Amino acid sequence: MITIDELIQNKQNKLPHTSSELEFIVNGFVAGEIPDYQMSSWLATVFLNDMSFKEISDYTSVMISSGKKMDWPDLPGFVVDKHSTGGVGDKVSLILGPILASCGLFVPMISGRALGHTGGTLDKLETIPGYKTDLSLDKFREIIKNIGVSLIGQTDDICPADRKIYALRDVTSTVASLPLICGSIMSKKIAEGIQGLVLDVKTGNGAFMKTYDNAKKLADLLTRIGQDHGLKVSSLITDMNQPLGNACGLWCEVKESIDALQGNGPDDLMEVVYHLCEKALSLFEPTNNNRQKVEEVIANGSAMEKFLELVCAHGGDVTQMLSGNLNKPKSKESIVAQKDGYISEMDTYKLGLSIIALGGGRQKQDDILDNSAGFILNKKVGESVAIGEPIVDVFCSDSNKLDQGLITIKRAIKISDTKPKQLQLIY
Amino acid sequence: MITIDELIQNKQNKLPHTSSELEFIVNGFVAGEIPDYQMSSWLATVFLNDMSFKEISDYTSVMISSGKKMDWPDLPGFVVDKHSTGGVGDKVSLILGPILASCGLFVPMISGRALGHTGGTLDKLETIPGYKTDLSLDKFREIIKNIGVSLIGQTDDICPADRKIYALRDVTSTVASLPLICGSIMSKKIAEGIQGLVLDVKTGNGAFMKTYDNAKKLADLLTRIGQDHGLKVSSLITDMNQPLGNACGLWCEVKESIDALQGNGPDDLMEVVYHLCEKALSLFEPTNNNRQKVEEVIANGSAMEKFLELVCAHGGDVTQMLSGNLNKPKSKESIVAQKDGYISEMDTYKLGLSIIALGGGRQKQDDILDNSAGFILNKKVGESVAIGEPIVDVFCSDSNKLDQGLITIKRAIKISDTKPKQLQLIY
Repeated sequence: MITIDELIQNKQNKLPHTSSELEFIVNGFVAGEIPDYQMSSWLATVFLNDMSFKEISDYTSVMISSGKKMDWPDLPGFVVDKHSTGGVGDKVSLILGPILASCGLFVPMISGRALGHTGGTLDKLETIPGYKTDLSLDKFREIIKNIGVSLIGQTDDICPADRKIYALRDVTSTVASLPLICGSIMSKKIAEGIQGLVLDVKTGNGAFMKTYDNAKKLADLLTRIGQDHGLKVSSLITDMNQPLGNACGLWCEVKESIDALQGNGPDDLMEVVYHLCEKALSLFEPTNNNRQKVEEVIANGSAMEKFLELVCAHGGDVTQMLSGNLNKPKSKESIVAQKDGYISEMDTYKLGLSIIALGGGRQKQDDILDNSAGFILNKKVGESVAIGEPIVDVFCSDSNKLDQGLITIKRAIKISDTKPKQLQLIY
Repeated sequence: MITIDELIQNKQNKLPHTSSELEFIVNGFVAGEIPDYQMSSWLATVFLNDMSFKEISDYTSVMISSGKKMDWPDLPGFVVDKHSTGGVGDKVSLILGPILASCGLFVPMISGRALGHTGGTLDKLETIPGYKTDLSLDKFREIIKNIGVSLIGQTDDICPADRKIYALRDVTSTVASLPLICGSIMSKKIAEGIQGLVLDVKTGNGAFMKTYDNAKKLADLLTRIGQDHGLKVSSLITDMNQPLGNACGLWCEVKESIDALQGNGPDDLMEVVYHLCEKALSLFEPTNNNRQKVEEVIANGSAMEKFLELVCAHGGDVTQMLSGNLNKPKSKESIVAQKDGYISEMDTYKLGLSIIALGGGRQKQDDILDNSAGFILNKKVGESVAIGEPIVDVFCSDSNKLDQGLITIKRAIKISDTKPKQLQLIY
């Protein structure tokens, strides 16, 4: 008879768990047979003593088996998804999904909500009047079949074990563990029944992985776990030492995504979108003209058309969305440069927190979000500024929160006298 | 504002806790503000990442402050206690307490129950009809004042934090942690308000510390923590590669203790008793004739007299105790040698478990003990045996349990053809 005591002790002594031992732990916890205090002792031990590749892969399999695994036997094309480890201003999913679908791929995206200082795709989509993110898997399946792309939220059917374990990790300081992160991310992606996955692993002061080395380690691990489960996987390590694009918040990020789909996105955002789309297409068909295909579906409007189909399919009101009168902020203020110089540094973590301060993120789980909240960066790192020039436009619909957000953002942005080194966007 | 999350993270990063941080953790847990799953994450992290000497000493102070600290302003002599890390057949407290009291010291002993495979002083004392171990601290104080020695059980007044933390450690595989063991042992001893402490740290296959090095580490740490709290401390590392003395169980150990107090104890048991008593006396008055004093109070009967006073003071029935008719086992069987040779090895851990199998220890917390259960070793490691000679007499009052115990004991004792190396008793 295995006991959880023994398994904790084995992990304390750095002995590997077998697949059936991991099954015992995960299923036992989900069934309530292993109480949370024992599970958290195990999690804290894994946090420090790590797991081997085989253990992580087995752990991922067990998490998948805790729920339904989707499959797509009737789709006439390659099924692919993208995962980003999270950052500030990262609205890539909103743009990449429609692009890949217009290129003929099928993109069943199950996304998350805002997590800590990073934004959540679902929260952004819900600023579109009527957009439903909590569809059944049957409805999800239908939309994917009809238009090629759908973005929904986590459901209880997929990886319920991950949900329960994540909630415990969140309150026991065991989130930042490579094997546990890996199992959590990959189980949910693999359970989507996809054939290919592109990973956008963020690194920098606004990412969970602060250093390139850690980001690389995570990217490699995620890739290998995916491959071990029969997926084609490709990864990109991209910069999060400043927000991606200019808009950060809720509705303003949807607007920037629409601009991007219409060919008017900021350079850095488009560069990341192009790279990830190319990688996704190359998983299916490795040719040299994948970038061209992506540029084409943007230029000919079919990507934007796909986005409108997506919004419609989810019950969203396209007319209102495009009216120009949606989610108008009641309060607005610009932060201006206090001296001539160059934007030398952005504390992206703080910028992420400022969105919470503005009301665009949650402090408590049941906080109601202010869809109008966010900011637009007029300047990015390396650009010159003149004294009095507006660097950031900050907005939301609560003047007290605006003040809080302004304080945080001011502290997060530095101006230097000399031109700083250019940040690398794609590593 | 400190948070438990931050403190777990600090410990994950091997940063030391301050005294007030440890206070926050321990008091927060006791008050129910820190839930058990967070506490167990912290405990598991401490288990792997250790604590510094200063942290352990502060942790000990915080545990003491969670309850009452006794003091003995009106006692006309040195106040001392002994602590053993636990073993099989270890009945030293029953003998040492009365000896030291007859030598003029004051010995307020707060003891524990059986723990895992090791016996508990309280369980043994309770085989004496009427003996009460759950006295109030006032009654305890009175007995100490009147006769110089009292043995009671843990009370809610002393170190309540330790009790709650220990219960959690017990089910989260975080018992075997040097800093946590140290804090647990020393907080309870220091809270007794004693001036001196002798430590009997056991090492061997029946001890919690399997190796001498670990035992030495624990002994040194316990000593330093005691000294840091103003106590005079002396330690002994003794062997637990076989039971101490010949009797192992409940009532049979009380009988052997009475024999010892009457000058008829087995050599190994007496050697450990003499050494520990000498050390205790030397803490108060370092002279060369302390061993002589101990031999004297045994020879002149005053130690035995003191034991009888102790039993009376606790409500025990001395007449019944000495009647020779107490706790008679209903079932009895001897294990005989299967070949000529020498006793070469005893798996002392298994021998400890055999007492539980016989009914003399608890499998569940509310198991009712069989006072008659136990065994007597007729041979110890290194002694020669002839085929058919009885090695161990095993007894209890349930024939099924007797069979269980016999199986375990048979497996635990090995006979070799050649004489094994003599075990060292005192390191």
